[in-house]
Amino acid sequence: MSVFTPVSEADLAQWLRNYSLGELKVSEPIEAGIENTNYFVTTTQGRYVLTLFERLPAEELPFYLQLMAHLARHGIPCPAPIADLSDRYLGVLNGKPAALVTRLPGRSLQDPHPAHCAELGALLARMHLAGRSYSAFLENPRGPRWWRLAARDVAPFLDDAKRKLLEAELAFQAEQRFPDLPRGPVHADLFRDNTLWEDGRISGVVDFYFAGVDCFLYDVAVCANDWCLDGAGLQAERLRAFLGAYNAVRPFTAHERAAWLAMLRAAALRFWLSRLYDLYLPRPGMLVHAHDPEHFRRILEARAGSPAPWLA
Amino acid sequence: MSVFTPVSEADLAQWLRNYSLGELKVSEPIEAGIENTNYFVTTTQGRYVLTLFERLPAEELPFYLQLMAHLARHGIPCPAPIADLSDRYLGVLNGKPAALVTRLPGRSLQDPHPAHCAELGALLARMHLAGRSYSAFLENPRGPRWWRLAARDVAPFLDDAKRKLLEAELAFQAEQRFPDLPRGPVHADLFRDNTLWEDGRISGVVDFYFAGVDCFLYDVAVCANDWCLDGAGLQAERLRAFLGAYNAVRPFTAHERAAWLAMLRAAALRFWLSRLYDLYLPRPGMLVHAHDPEHFRRILEARAGSPAPWLA
Repeated sequence: MSVFTPVSEADLAQWLRNYSLGELKVSEPIEAGIENTNYFVTTTQGRYVLTLFERLPAEELPFYLQLMAHLARHGIPCPAPIADLSDRYLGVLNGKPAALVTRLPGRSLQDPHPAHCAELGALLARMHLAGRSYSAFLENPRGPRWWRLAARDVAPFLDDAKRKLLEAELAFQAEQRFPDLPRGPVHADLFRDNTLWEDGRISGVVDFYFAGVDCFLYDVAVCANDWCLDGAGLQAERLRAFLGAYNAVRPFTAHERAAWLAMLRAAALRFWLSRLYDLYLPRPGMLVHAHDPEHFRRILEARAGSPAPWLA
Repeated sequence: MSVFTPVSEADLAQWLRNYSLGELKVSEPIEAGIENTNYFVTTTQGRYVLTLFERLPAEELPFYLQLMAHLARHGIPCPAPIADLSDRYLGVLNGKPAALVTRLPGRSLQDPHPAHCAELGALLARMHLAGRSYSAFLENPRGPRWWRLAARDVAPFLDDAKRKLLEAELAFQAEQRFPDLPRGPVHADLFRDNTLWEDGRISGVVDFYFAGVDCFLYDVAVCANDWCLDGAGLQAERLRAFLGAYNAVRPFTAHERAAWLAMLRAAALRFWLSRLYDLYLPRPGMLVHAHDPEHFRRILEARAGSPAPWLA
């Protein structure tokens, strides 16, 4: 379903001759992706993930690959792109831009305990600190400008109550200005699915293909809305563990404390909108994976109707 | 013995605040080094080796660290330097230039079988191919110029027979010119001690602090003189496995075939000289580790008195 561009073993064996990774042993398509074509690739040297980029503009790919390379060489457990014999991370395979990255060990986690949330918080803060010296720039591709475009496209499909909620939230967010929040590269999609765990530690942070430059606090909010969820609300113990561990590595500023509730709402809005978009305006090959938008509508309503939750 | 500059846990914990590696868990001095101060360092993120550079000129260190970074991002299993929060590989700790690199798994191997030699040959060739796109330059620090300087210093300590052997070999090597041999960054010290093995595969190639730019064939000769040794001669089965596997990845050129015997002699000369130097002109802290120079004198004599051994 999610292999948009098949890659035969013969294609791959030939392509690997551009690399210093030894001989192909096994390749296996990864069914889970909805944006790109991915294969697990094992060579005599090691284990890798091959990605053929199906959606992203080619000119944006260096931002993602160089960001992963930057974070990896700072010790963040993220996939490290492999350079080919011409010293490039990006090649072309079967007509698509393609890259190989290291395959990290571990498994994702669906039921995080407070200790897991603390581990995540510390790693997220370390990733943000390491990212500050990354010099490339790409606006968060799912930021305010995209919200407005997506809202215009999905509004015709919504009932009155939802359209009003959407309009009200866009109006609220349009009044928020965060010029003083610390910014840098953010993952922007660090859901439970995008972490790998081994022995109680995060062994991998994966899928950087929604990354961009934005407020670090936005990344914190995206995580809180997934990792610390209790119904549509936030579970106090996990939230405190997450935020406390983050704050111990990169202390929140006063501006961040003031912006926290608005940022939780922004993070909920972004995923409500993308899920609405994928539901009503799906691209080919995406249908079976569409997530229910209602999940994030409920989160948005819950955040918009609550006082600001605790920020460490 | 080999910790020239002690680093306390408090020093190290403070220094680690420049990195995105989490908190210090354990540090442990490494006694084996004879050139630098090394510690194993474990943090909440992972396992690293800390090196304080005691001998190398500070201006040469970027060549080594960038070379390791280059090879690592090409998939060669070598230590990857960790960048600090200012995006630098090199810092200063207790007054010495210092760097952290990843600690690789595995153990070294003292009794290589032909299959191990084949594994080594393939990896060495892949390392050479990956190194061709590395643009920094440092002359092999133990090349012909150094031979002549070292020979002058150790000659007064040698008996007549050894001095004659040394002079004859220097004269022979002075006649060799290899302008047409493929060149690039070479490890130049890839003895059995400097590889780590796991499950029959090389999990690490370590200690790049004798690396420089030279003929790739010189690296091949250094390895052959250690890995394929049988007395002072070369053991045919291991040599064929090693050279055959190398040749399958990077085929030897006609010029390399013609230069092979001279290169084996050059590689033996280099280590005979450095061992003589360390024996007769030791630096403080080195004495207990001095290797017997006779080992490489015998190898040099054996190579100089033999026809060229098989080159794949």
